[in-house]
Amino acid sequence: MFIAMNHFDVDPARGEEFERIWRERERHLDAVPGFVRFALLRGDEPGRYASHSTWESRAAFEAWTRSDAFRKAHAHARTPAGLVTGHPRLETWEAVLAE
Amino acid sequence: MFIAMNHFDVDPARGEEFERIWRERERHLDAVPGFVRFALLRGDEPGRYASHSTWESRAAFEAWTRSDAFRKAHAHARTPAGLVTGHPRLETWEAVLAE
Repeated sequence: MFIAMNHFDVDPARGEEFERIWRERERHLDAVPGFVRFALLRGDEPGRYASHSTWESRAAFEAWTRSDAFRKAHAHARTPAGLVTGHPRLETWEAVLAE
Repeated sequence: MFIAMNHFDVDPARGEEFERIWRERERHLDAVPGFVRFALLRGDEPGRYASHSTWESRAAFEAWTRSDAFRKAHAHARTPAGLVTGHPRLETWEAVLAE
């Protein structure tokens, strides 16, 4: 099992707007080979968010980032100016144990 | 849905030892109300680890931290000196979306 988390710093006053954009976004993930599940996470500190996707393997995740499904999911993924500050930070994890 | 991640900085030369200790540790989680799943995660950088537990709600997680099951799981959880450097850092997340 493999987990990819992309960390976003969002304008703390605009968290609801960020959540709405993710709620309305089409992700095209269901049919992607090796995809397990997706969540958008809100941290305890205002403006801290992370997308959290689980995959059968790192290879499945990497194949998705090179796929048409990925391009489609990101083609219309424009976010309004100033909503996200700085660059998203991708953090990836291999499961050593899962139960 | 709620996710609790506890981040550990492990001596980079001793990752296997850290993993073995977690593999052999009894967690007593299955019967805990609101528990969904557990994983031990290894980051890309040597020595970066996180325990990753998923719960139905923050309330379920917090009830567990005050329970007998938690005390049992941590009573024998001594780690050898120098294996983990610094203090574990707990990070908690609420799922805004899950699919």
